[in-house]
Amino acid sequence: MLVVSAHSADFVWRAAGAIALHTRDGGEARIVSLSYGERGESGELWKQPGQTEENVKRVRHAEAETAATALGASFEAMDLGDYPLHVDDAAVDRLAELMRDFAPDVVLTHPDKDPFNPDHPVAYTATQQARLLTSGAVVSAGFRTAPPSEFLVFEPHQPDLCGFVPTVFVDITPVMDRKLEAMEAMGAQQYLRSYYTERAGHRANHARKVTGRPEIRQAEAFQRIIPNVVSAL
Amino acid sequence: MLVVSAHSADFVWRAAGAIALHTRDGGEARIVSLSYGERGESGELWKQPGQTEENVKRVRHAEAETAATALGASFEAMDLGDYPLHVDDAAVDRLAELMRDFAPDVVLTHPDKDPFNPDHPVAYTATQQARLLTSGAVVSAGFRTAPPSEFLVFEPHQPDLCGFVPTVFVDITPVMDRKLEAMEAMGAQQYLRSYYTERAGHRANHARKVTGRPEIRQAEAFQRIIPNVVSAL
Amino acid sequence: MLVVSAHSADFVWRAAGAIALHTRDGGEARIVSLSYGERGESGELWKQPGQTEENVKRVRHAEAETAATALGASFEAMDLGDYPLHVDDAAVDRLAELMRDFAPDVVLTHPDKDPFNPDHPVAYTATQQARLLTSGAVVSAGFRTAPPSEFLVFEPHQPDLCGFVPTVFVDITPVMDRKLEAMEAMGAQQYLRSYYTERAGHRANHARKVTGRPEIRQAEAFQRIIPNVVSAL
Amino acid sequence: MLVVSAHSADFVWRAAGAIALHTRDGGEARIVSLSYGERGESGELWKQPGQTEENVKRVRHAEAETAATALGASFEAMDLGDYPLHVDDAAVDRLAELMRDFAPDVVLTHPDKDPFNPDHPVAYTATQQARLLTSGAVVSAGFRTAPPSEFLVFEPHQPDLCGFVPTVFVDITPVMDRKLEAMEAMGAQQYLRSYYTERAGHRANHARKVTGRPEIRQAEAFQRIIPNVVSAL
Amino acid sequence: MLVVSAHSADFVWRAAGAIALHTRDGGEARIVSLSYGERGESGELWKQPGQTEENVKRVRHAEAETAATALGASFEAMDLGDYPLHVDDAAVDRLAELMRDFAPDVVLTHPDKDPFNPDHPVAYTATQQARLLTSGAVVSAGFRTAPPSEFLVFEPHQPDLCGFVPTVFVDITPVMDRKLEAMEAMGAQQYLRSYYTERAGHRANHARKVTGRPEIRQAEAFQRIIPNVVSAL
Amino acid sequence: MLVVSAHSADFVWRAAGAIALHTRDGGEARIVSLSYGERGESGELWKQPGQTEENVKRVRHAEAETAATALGASFEAMDLGDYPLHVDDAAVDRLAELMRDFAPDVVLTHPDKDPFNPDHPVAYTATQQARLLTSGAVVSAGFRTAPPSEFLVFEPHQPDLCGFVPTVFVDITPVMDRKLEAMEAMGAQQYLRSYYTERAGHRANHARKVTGRPEIRQAEAFQRIIPNVVSAL
Repeated sequence: MLVVSAHSADFVWRAAGAIALHTRDGGEARIVSLSYGERGESGELWKQPGQTEENVKRVRHAEAETAATALGASFEAMDLGDYPLHVDDAAVDRLAELMRDFAPDVVLTHPDKDPFNPDHPVAYTATQQARLLTSGAVVSAGFRTAPPSEFLVFEPHQPDLCGFVPTVFVDITPVMDRKLEAMEAMGAQQYLRSYYTERAGHRANHARKVTGRPEIRQAEAFQRIIPNVVSAL
Repeated sequence: MLVVSAHSADFVWRAAGAIALHTRDGGEARIVSLSYGERGESGELWKQPGQTEENVKRVRHAEAETAATALGASFEAMDLGDYPLHVDDAAVDRLAELMRDFAPDVVLTHPDKDPFNPDHPVAYTATQQARLLTSGAVVSAGFRTAPPSEFLVFEPHQPDLCGFVPTVFVDITPVMDRKLEAMEAMGAQQYLRSYYTERAGHRANHARKVTGRPEIRQAEAFQRIIPNVVSAL
Repeated sequence: MLVVSAHSADFVWRAAGAIALHTRDGGEARIVSLSYGERGESGELWKQPGQTEENVKRVRHAEAETAATALGASFEAMDLGDYPLHVDDAAVDRLAELMRDFAPDVVLTHPDKDPFNPDHPVAYTATQQARLLTSGAVVSAGFRTAPPSEFLVFEPHQPDLCGFVPTVFVDITPVMDRKLEAMEAMGAQQYLRSYYTERAGHRANHARKVTGRPEIRQAEAFQRIIPNVVSAL
Repeated sequence: MLVVSAHSADFVWRAAGAIALHTRDGGEARIVSLSYGERGESGELWKQPGQTEENVKRVRHAEAETAATALGASFEAMDLGDYPLHVDDAAVDRLAELMRDFAPDVVLTHPDKDPFNPDHPVAYTATQQARLLTSGAVVSAGFRTAPPSEFLVFEPHQPDLCGFVPTVFVDITPVMDRKLEAMEAMGAQQYLRSYYTERAGHRANHARKVTGRPEIRQAEAFQRIIPNVVSAL
Repeated sequence: MLVVSAHSADFVWRAAGAIALHTRDGGEARIVSLSYGERGESGELWKQPGQTEENVKRVRHAEAETAATALGASFEAMDLGDYPLHVDDAAVDRLAELMRDFAPDVVLTHPDKDPFNPDHPVAYTATQQARLLTSGAVVSAGFRTAPPSEFLVFEPHQPDLCGFVPTVFVDITPVMDRKLEAMEAMGAQQYLRSYYTERAGHRANHARKVTGRPEIRQAEAFQRIIPNVVSAL
Repeated sequence: MLVVSAHSADFVWRAAGAIALHTRDGGEARIVSLSYGERGESGELWKQPGQTEENVKRVRHAEAETAATALGASFEAMDLGDYPLHVDDAAVDRLAELMRDFAPDVVLTHPDKDPFNPDHPVAYTATQQARLLTSGAVVSAGFRTAPPSEFLVFEPHQPDLCGFVPTVFVDITPVMDRKLEAMEAMGAQQYLRSYYTERAGHRANHARKVTGRPEIRQAEAFQRIIPNVVSAL
């Protein structure tokens, strides 16, 4: 599983449960953060006198690494800058090359629309582009390819204002403790911890509605971008 | 698995493979046809001199039963009339009662839009209504309920003109012989046999594109109406 | 050409030009009005003391007939009542029977959505239903059919609030005098005359934008509901 | 303000704050419930031995009345039955007549789509129909009219699965105690109390995002169905 | 209020009324034009023999300034070139910096889609980007921010072909004389003066439909991109 | 007629019939390929030992030229590279200049969305941009213009996953032999020949559904991006 995050904390709030389930089942999960969110989403750190961008990045890197470790995943940052995030051709190529090496079964990233964030759609576009450059036209291509991966986007902060329509709920009840631990690692953003804990409870309510299974207590929502293939319904 | 078909032949062209896979794996499949399509879709039979509506229905019932048997499924008809199909409250109740008794895991029917067919959207509406009356609000209700089922629509004849966007492909390669046998049972409609055989090949091409797996030779396309819940990605 | 109008004046404002062009070129045009709009859209007439519903209908019939005549078309009314308009199965059958007899090449009616009018979407639904019952599944059916017709909706009063997206502009410059004459026949609704005269000018501006042809001075906008077939682009 | 609720509890979870603000400012609010939700949404009551439908309705009426009183509003029920709710022409007429008498400035009801509830879209359709029959075509009509009202839908339980896109947030911080009191009156549904309390917090977070105003602690979300008119931006 | 216009005349046709109302009420309005429309929309000027691009810009600047003055607003041009308009990162930064300084309550610009104009969507994208870079994630950010503004797009020339759905009408009756004066300042484009005068009348008709208020004689239409927050309905 | 193809083979599968009809009727058709698809869609060629990019391009050019000749059209390649295709401002200008010189009546290209191909949307964007820069604002502009052309997109490989909704079917029965010949010229891609031959049969089935004309045996589907103008319905 490959998770592409615009800023270094995004994967925690939106996909920590799905990541932890994947690694619990023996899968490998790599988190690639395009930026640290050092300018736009690190306000608490900037309140400290004498703060520098380099130090903010260092702290954010450490936090994200701790969170990733709690989920059994690895974390790496491309440090491309935020607010605005720019992903040039070379960076897309790096991402594509990483996909060819890693050959993920599943790729997760942000939705393509967010009227509240300038960087999330950029992450979507770069990830989709890299994924298509990786798989080619699925005829043998004139370059190295990897098998096509499942491609999903995780839930944005205001889903109904971002065109996000969930198509699959993941029952994260068994790994909710891991998600809590990962959220705990995100130092400053206390409010988001309760927000996303409550949100996991709401999505579980929705998942109970579609299954009738009362044992689902926490869930995460995802939207598939391309159909998946199954061997039976 | 419960399949609700507007006319007695619809389930064959669009979902025979998924049905056959379900029964091959030990599942039970019931096909409920709301009408026989005796007026609008039995033109060949009406060319016979002296043809009567009762006889058309009899022939259509026999054909559909043969096809269902080939798929390991049972067939029953509600005989509500076609062109136009009307499903009144009592008929919705019968369908809901059937769902409560059968408690299907998966319900399949037509999409809610078809600018070329007056009856297909009626089948969708009746099926959705019956399904909701069956599951209640998923709090204990003042009537008998069944657990919520997965709910998908199968591919219409002109998908891009019916708002159909596939979200899942089913690899029907292992049971394509069954689908061919079921299509063979549909006496008159020779042209549709080659149409849907070719279509299964095209959908397999699409399924290969999203998986890279060359062994998929035939596939069927479905669209989930409500999200499903999984234990991991 | 068959034009199905919810109320007896609708065809004038939205399609008079297309009707006049059709009859000018030797075609036959029949206008069927489902109601007279006697309650909801005849406010001026109701201001007259002692007014009765029967008299309102009589006046509206005469006005519509005069307008139709100006366009070279015939007018007939089904008198089904307005605000709300109800089209029951028998009325749909009458409409379908009329289509089978008349076998129109083109059918025009209202769009399927109008948050400002309760009757326009009813007219759409009835027309679409009758049209599908007329053409059958385009295999020989167990009932009398007519060849499928082109199917378009005309421009509603507030297009961008009704989901109306024009797909074809008709250059009505050569018959604008006929449209003016037809509008003149609609006694009371003076304001609408200038509104729709200006509107025809605006649509001509749009039609000039897509063709560069300065001689288009008035136009009407339509949206095709189903694709048309051409012998070349 | 007129609030049309499919079941007798809906107005509490989704619009209690907006109602309380309206009455606090001197406005009058009437809540009309089309049914009691006696079959589909009263599971807790049905667990009591010897329970009857009449008694369930009695209890639900009392609860809703208490809740309405806490919000400064009146409550009335049309008792049309639920699961499924049917609103026939006579009931639409009663609703339209009520609108003509009351002449509300604002009408609130459910969205037009809900894949989890058979009755909510019925409430939307009936309310929209009644509203259009009330206002006529805004030319003087042949029947009694009331001035057009603002028309909004409140947030459904799973907004992103119901096509709900909020267009206005109401800051309900000043009346959150009233909403809590109204929710308290809804005897059995403890879980929903925390769900909607948390939801009010989340919507406040979204409202803070679009205003920057930290004093918003609770909010409700609505979607306008038709544009509103303002005297300046 | 900040109005971002792709070419120097756009603000006049689509938002002059809203601007004049804002300044009449004591607000400050700044109009920023990204280009002069010197190549694509100044055809009349280019008919003069010996015309130069510099002179066209000079004339267009003077016209826009006169129009802005008539509306009580200031006008400035970024002179980025048109057909095509390119807004690079530095220009987005200038726009963002201007927003931080000015801290507008309301931002107006073009919609994000226009199949008839290459520059209007570019203006949308740049404005949205600058706005998001200005407000940050609404947690204290590592850069200077301004409070989030209301964000609306004005009506394009062919609204129903640009995906434009009005969500708010502004009654510009009291300042229509100002809009006429501003339009008068736009030397060459006589045809557009009558087009947009008529359009204001049509939008007033729509605004009367949703309010029943006959005194609205001219209106402008806008679409909110993000929800607004109100203290009561 | 101008056809803009992302890779050198695209025009054959999707538009060969429409091209052949156009030239059969005396029209001129130019095919401009932005790249050769030398990396992403030439897998068969890359299987040859010692293959080089230059040689792949040479072979692809020859194949495309043979195909174009079979259709009576000319072929030219801009050789901008594929996977990813980049069309910079200079390339858009070349395309616009070509449009000004050629002044096509009809422009065909790819749809704007393709979740399976990184280059097709790029071709759409470049073509639309060039087309708008060619026609200007349809007032006399400060640069050389050509009259506005009809603008359509051809069918992508998976239409229902690309947002493609056909609005016009072209009956290519009379020129199907030309299309077969053109497809034959595309050396390696045998599978696509049967795929698109079957597809032409399916689209003919759809075209028969909307016309009732049994003589249509092969068809191609297109979607108009902007309305067309007709002199009568």
